Amino acid sequence: MPAEGDEMHSPREAGAVAKKSAAVLTRLREGAPRVHCITNSVAQNFTANVLLAAGALPSMTISAAEIADFVLSADALLVNLGTLDSERSKAIEIAIREANTGKLPWVLDPVLIDRTRPRATLARQLLEHGPAAVRLNAAEFRVLSSSPASSGDDVAAFAARSKAVIALSGPTDLVTDGERAATIANGHEWMGKVTAMGCAASALLAACLAVEPDRFDAAAAAMLILGVAGEIAAQEANGPGSFAAAILDALHKLDGDALLQKARVTS
Amino acid sequence: MPAEGDEMHSPREAGAVAKKSAAVLTRLREGAPRVHCITNSVAQNFTANVLLAAGALPSMTISAAEIADFVLSADALLVNLGTLDSERSKAIEIAIREANTGKLPWVLDPVLIDRTRPRATLARQLLEHGPAAVRLNAAEFRVLSSSPASSGDDVAAFAARSKAVIALSGPTDLVTDGERAATIANGHEWMGKVTAMGCAASALLAACLAVEPDRFDAAAAAMLILGVAGEIAAQEANGPGSFAAAILDALHKLDGDALLQKARVTS
Amino acid sequence: MPAEGDEMHSPREAGAVAKKSAAVLTRLREGAPRVHCITNSVAQNFTANVLLAAGALPSMTISAAEIADFVLSADALLVNLGTLDSERSKAIEIAIREANTGKLPWVLDPVLIDRTRPRATLARQLLEHGPAAVRLNAAEFRVLSSSPASSGDDVAAFAARSKAVIALSGPTDLVTDGERAATIANGHEWMGKVTAMGCAASALLAACLAVEPDRFDAAAAAMLILGVAGEIAAQEANGPGSFAAAILDALHKLDGDALLQKARVTS
Repeated sequence: MPAEGDEMHSPREAGAVAKKSAAVLTRLREGAPRVHCITNSVAQNFTANVLLAAGALPSMTISAAEIADFVLSADALLVNLGTLDSERSKAIEIAIREANTGKLPWVLDPVLIDRTRPRATLARQLLEHGPAAVRLNAAEFRVLSSSPASSGDDVAAFAARSKAVIALSGPTDLVTDGERAATIANGHEWMGKVTAMGCAASALLAACLAVEPDRFDAAAAAMLILGVAGEIAAQEANGPGSFAAAILDALHKLDGDALLQKARVTS
Repeated sequence: MPAEGDEMHSPREAGAVAKKSAAVLTRLREGAPRVHCITNSVAQNFTANVLLAAGALPSMTISAAEIADFVLSADALLVNLGTLDSERSKAIEIAIREANTGKLPWVLDPVLIDRTRPRATLARQLLEHGPAAVRLNAAEFRVLSSSPASSGDDVAAFAARSKAVIALSGPTDLVTDGERAATIANGHEWMGKVTAMGCAASALLAACLAVEPDRFDAAAAAMLILGVAGEIAAQEANGPGSFAAAILDALHKLDGDALLQKARVTS
Repeated sequence: MPAEGDEMHSPREAGAVAKKSAAVLTRLREGAPRVHCITNSVAQNFTANVLLAAGALPSMTISAAEIADFVLSADALLVNLGTLDSERSKAIEIAIREANTGKLPWVLDPVLIDRTRPRATLARQLLEHGPAAVRLNAAEFRVLSSSPASSGDDVAAFAARSKAVIALSGPTDLVTDGERAATIANGHEWMGKVTAMGCAASALLAACLAVEPDRFDAAAAAMLILGVAGEIAAQEANGPGSFAAAILDALHKLDGDALLQKARVTS
């Protein structure tokens, strides 16, 4: 991610991000929140396993006839635009309406909107329906925000304008709500070699929103938790295949101490 | 699973369950039955790999135009209600009709019917079309059977009423056809941390039905085979991610001796 | 695969196949071609991970509204007929038209056409639209070619007639364009125990076509790269589950030297 971390806050607050993330992780394990995921067919299996390893309970139906029941009995919602088809499009509309009515936090993941114009248009429309957070990469950010660049200032300005926490994934992740910002330098290059890793990060963000009302803290926790799990996993793995299994193992074992020790956060 | 094992049979019959399961496993390897799976998109990949590891041959299409051809050239059918959409609904209707016409055994897996009313209604309708077996968890059982509880007696009564073998998954699995019952205490807690493990158990049950005409023996074999494979896998794994791979390895290597040695069955 | 290798070329050319494949692998890593995959829902995740491990960039949407955008911004296309449904059928028609208009190479994978007549008919129609290559197994070959057998001569004759390179998977793979032929004896039996391995081979073939204009060389490279990765993976794995992860690790690490040392190619 080309964005530089904004230095809006003192270094002392960096440790605070890790501490809050540890608390979010504890609440995830204890609360076992239900996360309904409208996500692409490539990502469904890995996403479900990431949520289970983190302590959450996934569901994945995309049927228009069933989606309202699932959203209403869930604690958070993920709307991921990958492999968007007519069934998913209908489900998204209903799901967001139900989530907003029921005050359920939801995450928008505008997958690959740099490759398809109808999807970019849809992502911009969905943004107006008030996601709690948007997780995306730099190319997707530039399309969604209509910004030529994705510096920390660009992202913060867009977060303020869209009233959503933005979690921008990259070699260094950036999380900002326009006022606060944190950069998270954890993670491993193999995370970019496992399909659906970003999609799973968005689902984890939704899970964190289910147990943490401060959307900025929830987003920072999700990115830190997955990044630290990735670092631990890389030490066990021989390549991206074994890494995909190892990150689930690491996520399942992860505790607050590991987050505090390994966090490389500036805020 | 809160159900207690019914003590309908002598302990000597417990060993008989393991022996019969070993014979079913041998016939699976030799017969390589074709199992057509209408299953949810989250479970398709893992289910196919479980069937391959056990010696069966999976197919997974859900197209209304093709489903009859696949069912008619298969040896057993799985109907799993997860990620139910319009295409799957149409396919299920055709598939069950063809299976019943062709005397093909089929398994119903009423995934998450505790979360969505239309799906619960569909599951009850499908039950009237005569599945050989139903595999489900306690929450799903209570909805399908309209019972407030899921004790061994409740399950046996429902099996007798519905004329289907019931395989109830949980920390201890219960298999019953209303007259006979077996509890299987094998397995590992990580089986609940891998998405689609229950769905894969249902597919394995369908594979066992393809090679074992006694539906009770087939269901007990499927639950025992997967449970023992899970126990062996847990010794090799570091968490739920590596466990998902290790259970496929264990299933592929599993033989009758391991079943006889490790079975913790009461009947 | 029952086909015998045609001895159309001198042994010296066998080393040439490995050398060319090493060059293709290098170009894959450097070029990071975009491969759009219309593939079955069982195969999507593993296929994406195989492409990422090899250095390519997968996309997977099947929506009729988006498919043209994805194909036009891709470097190669895979058309896999597994889990064929109405959405996929529409997407295939548009995708092939766009690919042909844009001179994009595309691969046809006629999955399981031996099990369903409508799909066999569709596969024969698609063949007339000029795929650069077709990858399939012996049973699928016999249906597609209407040949009773799948000897090297049969396959070469069909390749000449259909003007597509044919890559026939089996214990020994055969690649032929009708004039040239190579047999590749690399690989491991566990490749047949991992679902979607053949589908992933077809996607890798598409990736190789994106960086190698000679379609015969591209097809031979894909089969050799995956076969050698499979052999290396088998040494690390304990069964088909760990093998599926290990082949991704091996593919990610693979270099031209390993190809040259391990290739068992006759041409």
